[in-house]
Amino acid sequence: MDDLTDVETTAAWLSREELDSARERLPILYVHAVPVRVDDRGIVTRIALLLRADDEGGIGQEVVGGRVLYHEKIRDALARHIENDLGPVALPRIPVSPHPIAVAQFFPTPGVTPYHDPRQHAVSLVYIVAVMGDCRPQQDALDLSWVTPEEAADMSMRGEMSGSHGVLVRQALAHIGFPV
Amino acid sequence: MDDLTDVETTAAWLSREELDSARERLPILYVHAVPVRVDDRGIVTRIALLLRADDEGGIGQEVVGGRVLYHEKIRDALARHIENDLGPVALPRIPVSPHPIAVAQFFPTPGVTPYHDPRQHAVSLVYIVAVMGDCRPQQDALDLSWVTPEEAADMSMRGEMSGSHGVLVRQALAHIGFPV
Amino acid sequence: MDDLTDVETTAAWLSREELDSARERLPILYVHAVPVRVDDRGIVTRIALLLRADDEGGIGQEVVGGRVLYHEKIRDALARHIENDLGPVALPRIPVSPHPIAVAQFFPTPGVTPYHDPRQHAVSLVYIVAVMGDCRPQQDALDLSWVTPEEAADMSMRGEMSGSHGVLVRQALAHIGFPV
Amino acid sequence: MDDLTDVETTAAWLSREELDSARERLPILYVHAVPVRVDDRGIVTRIALLLRADDEGGIGQEVVGGRVLYHEKIRDALARHIENDLGPVALPRIPVSPHPIAVAQFFPTPGVTPYHDPRQHAVSLVYIVAVMGDCRPQQDALDLSWVTPEEAADMSMRGEMSGSHGVLVRQALAHIGFPV
Repeated sequence: MDDLTDVETTAAWLSREELDSARERLPILYVHAVPVRVDDRGIVTRIALLLRADDEGGIGQEVVGGRVLYHEKIRDALARHIENDLGPVALPRIPVSPHPIAVAQFFPTPGVTPYHDPRQHAVSLVYIVAVMGDCRPQQDALDLSWVTPEEAADMSMRGEMSGSHGVLVRQALAHIGFPV
Repeated sequence: MDDLTDVETTAAWLSREELDSARERLPILYVHAVPVRVDDRGIVTRIALLLRADDEGGIGQEVVGGRVLYHEKIRDALARHIENDLGPVALPRIPVSPHPIAVAQFFPTPGVTPYHDPRQHAVSLVYIVAVMGDCRPQQDALDLSWVTPEEAADMSMRGEMSGSHGVLVRQALAHIGFPV
Repeated sequence: MDDLTDVETTAAWLSREELDSARERLPILYVHAVPVRVDDRGIVTRIALLLRADDEGGIGQEVVGGRVLYHEKIRDALARHIENDLGPVALPRIPVSPHPIAVAQFFPTPGVTPYHDPRQHAVSLVYIVAVMGDCRPQQDALDLSWVTPEEAADMSMRGEMSGSHGVLVRQALAHIGFPV
Repeated sequence: MDDLTDVETTAAWLSREELDSARERLPILYVHAVPVRVDDRGIVTRIALLLRADDEGGIGQEVVGGRVLYHEKIRDALARHIENDLGPVALPRIPVSPHPIAVAQFFPTPGVTPYHDPRQHAVSLVYIVAVMGDCRPQQDALDLSWVTPEEAADMSMRGEMSGSHGVLVRQALAHIGFPV
């Protein structure tokens, strides 16, 4: 979920070795954003999925996300990761409240929760973020696709998403009232 | 979802004819409670399902629910319907906040939302309610069964629940972090 | 909170007499929207307040709101009341989820809850809605003012809002993390 | 908010020096619990406040809270801190969902958010937790008092709580529908 840019950006805060060390000692705070297109009545019409090499060495569809940095507000972390993953003109509508739609607890040990991250114990605050502008896959993403909520639900059931991201997308769909 | 007892109880407020008339003119406020057993760490271990004749003439598993009456608080409506459906010694832990985990919009026209009620337009505030005592099916329920979250998810996918109640149970499971 | 236009619009559904009768028999479903301006980081910078004759015969600041009609979705009720109260080019960002930030239970009897409406028992789903366009007071509103969150908190403490609306605004401010 | 026992318990994970170092580099994940007494209808009748030396060298009323440890679930962190602060027979009803009622972002720099912690950048997931058993102040707490919601609101306005904890308590009161 993290990426090179992240590491470079945060060089002043934490070296790679220090981050690796912290990851073995502390839960790491994350944010995830499910990027969506909405019509003018607020109905979610499409969900953006990023195709990338996932944490387990395969390839899978993922949503946007990454670490919250030291002295960074949640809303700023969301804006930064959306820009990192979808480009500078995605025009996200950052939520007015830090209240997440879900809390995803990623454990390094599989099976503790539905969320697994072999590198670390990460606790992620999950948001749905409408993006109004032009989105292009950045950096490590191989592709960016816009799918309907129905397609996203199907893809997650067929295992085309990283396991944890499939659960996360279905949690988001359930939250907006879509039948998962 | 309503039942005879409801109608009798509310005779002072609304006759059957008046209620039928209101149901063609106004959205009716409902509450639904997903009754659960929890262990002492707050983990949901079982969900209670009531087998009954559903609104479409079939038989299906449902959760607890019904109308909110005139001058009745949401918490009191929850307590009343839990007593009506699970008996007087269910010992529910009524939520401290009226904040629902979901809002289910039942429409008389199928397909408008995932929730359908041929009799009326009902808007339901949905809660998860831990019950600590002895539960017995009351009145129109044919059976009461306690299933695991996994079994509930499977049953809802296999169509063993009334359609709307299957969606509602999966929304509740997603809310507590269970992978639906 | 309702207004003449509402009654006219819904003439096909319910006459004034029938609505008055229903109001004495059933809880009436409402929505309220706290209209806000946000900057591009999602920070609430201003709250819109409508000055109008309140339900108790005085004058007070209120937020947007009104009834949900038969066969109307919550998001459509929100859009309709925002247009009724703020005009046709307010450009609201209707929330993607029907999940409210609060549930306000208005009782005809004062003191049952912090919310009072002498005309009826109304249960309102409360949302924060960013409006991006031009807003003008419509119909029965005497004025529309944009105040900072701090000013809104102060006004509600000084009693310049209808009592119930002051509570509602402070609940909204608390939800977005503003110290009330 | 942390305490000696915490440090001892987590010695295997992180030395005091390492924790101090991490606190200068990473946001630290916290949980806070507002301990409440409820009646059998779910109405909050009392809130528990702990009198202790606060982070700024004064004395103030606080709620329960502390760090989430590596490989610890949120619910287990809540249970551990409640036991640490209120004793082993508090009999908490740990929430069924990891969904917090609020997210409190404590910054080392005052004024960035309403929450301030001079020692660190901490992001706290806030819960309301009903406790049914016997509660006694533990460790560093000077006293434990049970106050009504009204008294809690008054105390927070009069500055008798640590600043951040006053905001946190009012957010919790707003969430349960109490007029703050």
